[in-house]
Amino acid sequence: MIRKTSMKDIAQDVGVSIALVSYVLNNQKENRIGKEVAEKIREAAKRLNYQPNQLAKSLKTNKSFTIGLIVADMANPFSASLARIVEDEADKHKYTVLFGSSDENPQRLQKVIDTLLNRQVDGLIIAAPEGSEAQLVALQQRIPFVLIDRYFPDLTTSYVALNNYTSIYSGVQHLIDSGYQRIGMVSFDTNLFHLNERKRGYKSALKANNLPFVKSWLKELDQATFRTDMAKAVRELVKGPRAVDAILFASNILALHGLKQLNALSVNVPEEVAVLSFDEAEAYDLFYTPITCIRQPLVEMGQLATHLLLETIQKNNRLTQINLDGELVIRASTRARNTTHQGNRRPGERSQVRDHKA
Amino acid sequence: MIRKTSMKDIAQDVGVSIALVSYVLNNQKENRIGKEVAEKIREAAKRLNYQPNQLAKSLKTNKSFTIGLIVADMANPFSASLARIVEDEADKHKYTVLFGSSDENPQRLQKVIDTLLNRQVDGLIIAAPEGSEAQLVALQQRIPFVLIDRYFPDLTTSYVALNNYTSIYSGVQHLIDSGYQRIGMVSFDTNLFHLNERKRGYKSALKANNLPFVKSWLKELDQATFRTDMAKAVRELVKGPRAVDAILFASNILALHGLKQLNALSVNVPEEVAVLSFDEAEAYDLFYTPITCIRQPLVEMGQLATHLLLETIQKNNRLTQINLDGELVIRASTRARNTTHQGNRRPGERSQVRDHKA
Repeated sequence: MIRKTSMKDIAQDVGVSIALVSYVLNNQKENRIGKEVAEKIREAAKRLNYQPNQLAKSLKTNKSFTIGLIVADMANPFSASLARIVEDEADKHKYTVLFGSSDENPQRLQKVIDTLLNRQVDGLIIAAPEGSEAQLVALQQRIPFVLIDRYFPDLTTSYVALNNYTSIYSGVQHLIDSGYQRIGMVSFDTNLFHLNERKRGYKSALKANNLPFVKSWLKELDQATFRTDMAKAVRELVKGPRAVDAILFASNILALHGLKQLNALSVNVPEEVAVLSFDEAEAYDLFYTPITCIRQPLVEMGQLATHLLLETIQKNNRLTQINLDGELVIRASTRARNTTHQGNRRPGERSQVRDHKA
Repeated sequence: MIRKTSMKDIAQDVGVSIALVSYVLNNQKENRIGKEVAEKIREAAKRLNYQPNQLAKSLKTNKSFTIGLIVADMANPFSASLARIVEDEADKHKYTVLFGSSDENPQRLQKVIDTLLNRQVDGLIIAAPEGSEAQLVALQQRIPFVLIDRYFPDLTTSYVALNNYTSIYSGVQHLIDSGYQRIGMVSFDTNLFHLNERKRGYKSALKANNLPFVKSWLKELDQATFRTDMAKAVRELVKGPRAVDAILFASNILALHGLKQLNALSVNVPEEVAVLSFDEAEAYDLFYTPITCIRQPLVEMGQLATHLLLETIQKNNRLTQINLDGELVIRASTRARNTTHQGNRRPGERSQVRDHKA
């Protein structure tokens, strides 16, 4: 049977009153307690493995020193990396992190919120799913929170997010500057603001460069079925009557599945089609051509969101909205066209430089 | 300013006593309370967004209905997937999960343990780092826990782990049956029992098949520097004077970096060297040849560990040790030698079947 060491155990061990032990361990009345006895009490607490009851403390201070982190899916590398950053940052401020996955589902989000609130978390960091605006409005009356990655332009909430519009705009501009003119995009069919901003940036960049927006070049896949829908989308983009010469993937999960399909169709990157991905993924390292991507400042996002939340918890209802810029990391998958440079070819592979005509 | 709904608020709203509200919301004295008034109280609690104070409840029941999960690094896909499985399983039993990363470091492990114990978790699931035996022995006096993935044969603790010896043995046997005879292995230089079991299984399988164990074919890399050391290790294995015809990677992180190096050296898989990996990774999908791997039953491991812990919390000190079998998933990277089958070749790639002579 496991029994926890109590203040009484320490008092008996040292031969002092329980009150004295309590004063010392809670750093109270320091001037009025002898250094020697205080030292003895601390030594006994350590030796007997005394652990203060954080729950009792929390009831007193009305703070649990715990924050909740709600991600889309903890098994997703983006979520997991974010979780690790928030964990480290919270730990620096003596906060612990409870976590939950919303599965991009408002019902499940509500369940996770209720569970975390039941655990008396002091605040929440939330990567909110589509359709959760009303829940977030209601939540504002209940607990401080900071949105991360996704936000809703009509909601007055604190958030840390990417400037998706300018990030994708610079990516498309890079493709155009590299000689690509028939640029397709694969995204999700969604109302999520951050993904719509990526679509808007894509269209704006085309327009600013006097390139047409071709409807069939924008593939918006259903979240639930995108893995199977990807084959058709990629085939139409690269093998259809109006084939593209570059594909922009709106997230790393989309790029991962898209690259698989390009492999299955035996399409060479970038000779037959250039590829640009939003987000990075370790997986890209195994693709034969290094992938150009828009890198999100994940560490900065996680740290800022944690700071912001802890500040909000202390000062109550401070509103801060932060948009960070993505970084365009240029690699061989968007190599300038009509050059003879042949780096990154796989061994034994036949050279396939062609005269690309639009 | 955010104020939580109290039982008093509900009592005033309905026009009853606080005691009556408490009875209804805690499901007490049900026979003695009118159905209609109970219904009204529940409706008001819902409408006013009443959240019971879990901390106060926990102090009463001495249970926090929270468990802690300590992984090596939450940003690692293996850890993240495990976290998600434990989260879902704990949620089914109304438990919430606090998590922490040990970074394979006993000092950091102790810090995470202390933090979680401070938060009054009811138990822990731990993927323990090397050199943490003494800490775990001390922990046995303090809280119920279940080890996962890693365990220590000399410690009498509950655990759920893989049968690493038999899993790797069957992998090596498969390589030998497919015609490979010069089999190298890349692992970490560690005392961790589960990795040593993999080494033992590798050696035993060679011996049982009358194949020599060649010392230079076993590369044990330092955890801290393996990313940079991998280039040299792989080069020696495939380009050295005694080149291997197959490489066994002891984990998916090792395989990921090893495959990168095989790409960098322009070595064809499996024509020049077969590859077998412990663990799967989504990243392998982008390698031009599908990778044969030993799949760990991750869902089963996570669910069993959670169940075991919750049982231990209820019944105290029940000891259960579970070894699960891995599944050998055979793909093209270990294709039988001296065949003319040419699947999974990349477009434009020159055929490179050779007469392999040892």
